[in-house]
Amino acid sequence: MLLDINLELAQSIILSHIPSLASEELPLMESFGRVLAMDYAARHDLPMQARSAVDGYALAVGEAPVNSSFLLKVVPSNEAAVISEDEAMAVTTGGSLPEGTQAVVPHEKTLLQDGKLSVLESIKPGANIKTSGEDYRQGEILATTGTIIDGGVAAALAAFGYSRINVRVRPRVAVLALGNSIVPFDVSPEPHQMRDSNGPMLAAMISQDGCETVSIEVADSIESADKVLRHMLSRADMVVCTGGTYARGTDEARQILEGLGVELFYWGVPIQPGSHHGAGRYQNALVLALSGNPAACAVGYHLFASPALNSMQGLTSLPQIVQARCINGFAKKSGSRRFVRGHAEYVNGGWQVEVLPGQKPSMLKSLLNCNALIDLPAGTPPVGIDDEITIWLL
Amino acid sequence: MLLDINLELAQSIILSHIPSLASEELPLMESFGRVLAMDYAARHDLPMQARSAVDGYALAVGEAPVNSSFLLKVVPSNEAAVISEDEAMAVTTGGSLPEGTQAVVPHEKTLLQDGKLSVLESIKPGANIKTSGEDYRQGEILATTGTIIDGGVAAALAAFGYSRINVRVRPRVAVLALGNSIVPFDVSPEPHQMRDSNGPMLAAMISQDGCETVSIEVADSIESADKVLRHMLSRADMVVCTGGTYARGTDEARQILEGLGVELFYWGVPIQPGSHHGAGRYQNALVLALSGNPAACAVGYHLFASPALNSMQGLTSLPQIVQARCINGFAKKSGSRRFVRGHAEYVNGGWQVEVLPGQKPSMLKSLLNCNALIDLPAGTPPVGIDDEITIWLL
Repeated sequence: MLLDINLELAQSIILSHIPSLASEELPLMESFGRVLAMDYAARHDLPMQARSAVDGYALAVGEAPVNSSFLLKVVPSNEAAVISEDEAMAVTTGGSLPEGTQAVVPHEKTLLQDGKLSVLESIKPGANIKTSGEDYRQGEILATTGTIIDGGVAAALAAFGYSRINVRVRPRVAVLALGNSIVPFDVSPEPHQMRDSNGPMLAAMISQDGCETVSIEVADSIESADKVLRHMLSRADMVVCTGGTYARGTDEARQILEGLGVELFYWGVPIQPGSHHGAGRYQNALVLALSGNPAACAVGYHLFASPALNSMQGLTSLPQIVQARCINGFAKKSGSRRFVRGHAEYVNGGWQVEVLPGQKPSMLKSLLNCNALIDLPAGTPPVGIDDEITIWLL
Repeated sequence: MLLDINLELAQSIILSHIPSLASEELPLMESFGRVLAMDYAARHDLPMQARSAVDGYALAVGEAPVNSSFLLKVVPSNEAAVISEDEAMAVTTGGSLPEGTQAVVPHEKTLLQDGKLSVLESIKPGANIKTSGEDYRQGEILATTGTIIDGGVAAALAAFGYSRINVRVRPRVAVLALGNSIVPFDVSPEPHQMRDSNGPMLAAMISQDGCETVSIEVADSIESADKVLRHMLSRADMVVCTGGTYARGTDEARQILEGLGVELFYWGVPIQPGSHHGAGRYQNALVLALSGNPAACAVGYHLFASPALNSMQGLTSLPQIVQARCINGFAKKSGSRRFVRGHAEYVNGGWQVEVLPGQKPSMLKSLLNCNALIDLPAGTPPVGIDDEITIWLL
């Protein structure tokens, strides 16, 4: 086991131990936001045959004469029809065209009187006709594995009649708060106890990352921690422990995990907040231990858990890192590398970030309205107003 | 009814007719991603009493002497304990402190031998103690109405034991594809028919916007359109019609809506794609008619439907607009204002956007990988490589 390794090494070790997840088949209408588990290709040319691109009239003449007399006889719309040069047939957007169609003229460029049609503007051969295969050729890739099913992907899958879609299963995450003075958030605490806010926080973040929290527990003794963890390790793709001290010494979380047979990759990453962090695995489950302090727990989730959950789903794992102007400064110097919680906005052609109030690791306040982590390298002096700093966009 | 009005006026008319939605109470653990329907405040000071900010030892001396001899007697942890100046008591992060505590020293700055403790680094009075109310004072606002419940909000609500949360109901949207040659996407089309891809596309976009698609139908005749719409108008907060021509003339969607008693605010917005668009209301339901062409339907959703759905939930309604460098250009000049589908990325300190392939309104292709609309004013000449253009981030 490695001790006190740097952040990037810790992240790369986690990302090299991502469990492989199964796929499942879902109805298209229940697959939105999920991640494709295979490539999807066009089953046929789209459109399969020429179609009208507008609401209007199909014409059999390549260049319709433009004038105000009513030249063309409007014949009834009929799927099997043929039109001749002196005829026009009403067609609808996306609808099929009669045999002999050379162009389609939109309604607004025509005048209709007594069943006779006049074309008001010149129209070119092929105008407003979608040719077969114009959008997709048979076999052309629509979307590759790892693509999130958004509106565009849903439209393409629907257009080819894909009604059941092969997607990655949602990673299952179990969350355990360790500590003898922690009670579940919906239990009234005794004076010496406090509510677990990390469990609901992590569950909300896990949900936002498209994953499922399968259980969320509190262990008020080492014995119950052992028992609950054993159960979690058998049914989750990732187990996240927060806190983990029972006043019997340091790094009890580490001892509990090792006692259960968890293979720890490393312990300790010298960042603030949240240096008491470790990662390992147990069979197919990834195991992360995060600090119990709320801000440290949140930072640890973003730096270690979220990239792993993204990677399990085949998505880009790490958040985008950009330069930003700090609008309010940060008075403390940073001994070790520090992740300050901020609110970032793109304004007037550049990113700016506000350092949020309540930056002690033990405080919740900086997690409200937080959409960025400010990455201050070890030894950074106090940050001034308008200083340029590096931020991770969450 | 107004005819052919500009985009900004159309948007402001829609936003001035947003139906007011009810709220509902959900368990905190089922409220993630939802929008608060009231302000939430701290129910008490947090912490309620002084707590340890680290795992370590509570000391009764303000400035513990630093040396290597073992001075302090470690006494058993006890919720009701008092410590004296020659004693230390093990405490855990977030745990309560014995009476008399002046400071907490972290484990890693101590040595323990034979039940006696030595402090290795100087420690200041008050160090590592969370004072009562340090994070929140009773009555202080945690999050205001209109806030999305993310990890930080969930943590704050949990910390005060809010177990049932008052949130906005999800707007209910009904989607109807009008047109006599359209079949549901999971039905095999006859040669003259085509699958409805707009319904699944809109449902995916509606889901991404945090709303619920309550029904999605296809009407292959004016009579069935009438019947289905009547039903939808009675049970949805928004009805979106796409297409709407049955080869009997122009603007049949408009005639159908007016025939049902929908009060139309306007009809026609001179943008490409999707100028055949209108908006109105029927009792409490907002009604939007969008073009049936896939790209026009998608653009119409982003410009008209999505802002309305955001506004119903009390969220920022319009997308962010930024300047971007076009990396591949766009060869057509734009007669009317045009919304080109693009893929935007923030790279090397600036936004860049790629014009996606397949920009005909009748094509799906430009909707794949689309995360931005490029806004080209009327009369814009062809866009060159590296030209600066305006984009709407989706």
